[in-house]
Amino acid sequence: MLLRQGYHDLGIAAVLEATGIPKGSFYHHFANKEDFGLQVIDLYMTQVHAGLDHCLVDESRTPLDRVRRFFELTEEKYRGEGYLGCLLGGLGQELSGVSEAFRSKVEWCFCEIARRIANCLEEAVGLGDLAAGTDTRAMADLLVNCWEGAALRTRLRRDPAPLRQMLDFYFRGAAA
Amino acid sequence: MLLRQGYHDLGIAAVLEATGIPKGSFYHHFANKEDFGLQVIDLYMTQVHAGLDHCLVDESRTPLDRVRRFFELTEEKYRGEGYLGCLLGGLGQELSGVSEAFRSKVEWCFCEIARRIANCLEEAVGLGDLAAGTDTRAMADLLVNCWEGAALRTRLRRDPAPLRQMLDFYFRGAAA
Repeated sequence: MLLRQGYHDLGIAAVLEATGIPKGSFYHHFANKEDFGLQVIDLYMTQVHAGLDHCLVDESRTPLDRVRRFFELTEEKYRGEGYLGCLLGGLGQELSGVSEAFRSKVEWCFCEIARRIANCLEEAVGLGDLAAGTDTRAMADLLVNCWEGAALRTRLRRDPAPLRQMLDFYFRGAAA
Repeated sequence: MLLRQGYHDLGIAAVLEATGIPKGSFYHHFANKEDFGLQVIDLYMTQVHAGLDHCLVDESRTPLDRVRRFFELTEEKYRGEGYLGCLLGGLGQELSGVSEAFRSKVEWCFCEIARRIANCLEEAVGLGDLAAGTDTRAMADLLVNCWEGAALRTRLRRDPAPLRQMLDFYFRGAAA
C-alpha cells in the first residue's frame, strides 16, 4: 500500500482495514505513522540484504554477473507487485523535502546497498573484469542511482523494459 | 512548494498564503488541486522546452555537446532550488500509483523530452559521433531515466555530484 499510494495518501485507517489489525495493536507497535513508515523501510531493507546475501556470494558467477543477478531478481520482485518501482525511491522522492528522518534513512539505505555492491565490484577489479583503479564506490552509487531512475520509468509505464535497458548499458559501459 | 513538499503534503491554503492570492481567484483559474498540479507541470514543461530550444540548435557545439549542455543547465536550475531534484520525477513517483491523470501526464512529458533529445542524437549518428544504427530513441530514454535517478540521489544528498557522474558515464558509454 505504501508503494502504490505513497506516504501521505495512505491513511492508517486504510492499513488497519486492509490488515484487520485493531487500532490499539497498531499503536502498540508503532509510535505514529512516521514510525510505521520507517519500520516498513527497515523490513524492506531486510529483504534487500537477503537478496544481496543470496546473489553476491554466488561463486558460480563472476562478480559482475552476481551484481547483475541481484538487480534481475529485484526486477522479478517488481513484476510481482505490478511494476510499481522501488519503495525506497518512492518514499525518498516524496518525503526527503519535508522529513529529515526519511531523507537520512533512505540515503543510508542506498549507501548500504552501494557499499555491498562496491565490495563485489572490487572483486571484479581483482579479476581484471573491471579496470584497475576503478572507483568502485562511485560505480556502485552510479548503478544504484540509474536503477532508481529506470524504476521510476517502469512505475510510470508499468513496463520492465527501462530496467533491462539500463542494466545492458551499465554493464557494457562498466566493462569497456 | 510542490517540488519541496510534494503533492499531498502541500495544502492549497498554504499556496494561497505564500502567494497572497485570494481563494476565489485560485478556484477561478484552477478547477481543483489536481488541475493546479497538472497546470504546474505544463508551466514546468514550457521551461523545459525553452531550455531544449536554447541548447539543441546551438550550431557552435556538436550534437552530443548540445544534449549534455541541456542537462548541465538543468543542474544549474536545480542548484537555484537547493538541489531538490526534478519536479516531474517527484510528482511521477508520488502520484503515478494513484492518479492516472498524473501518471499519463508525467510519462508524456518524459516522452516529449526524449523525442527531442533523440532527434539531436540522430544528428550525432549522421556525423559519426554515435555508431550507425544506434537506437537513438532508446538512448534518449535511457539518458532521461538515468538523469531522473541521479536527480533523486541529488535530492537525498542536496549534492549535484550524482548528476555529473551520471553524465560522464553516459556520454563515455554512448560514444564508445
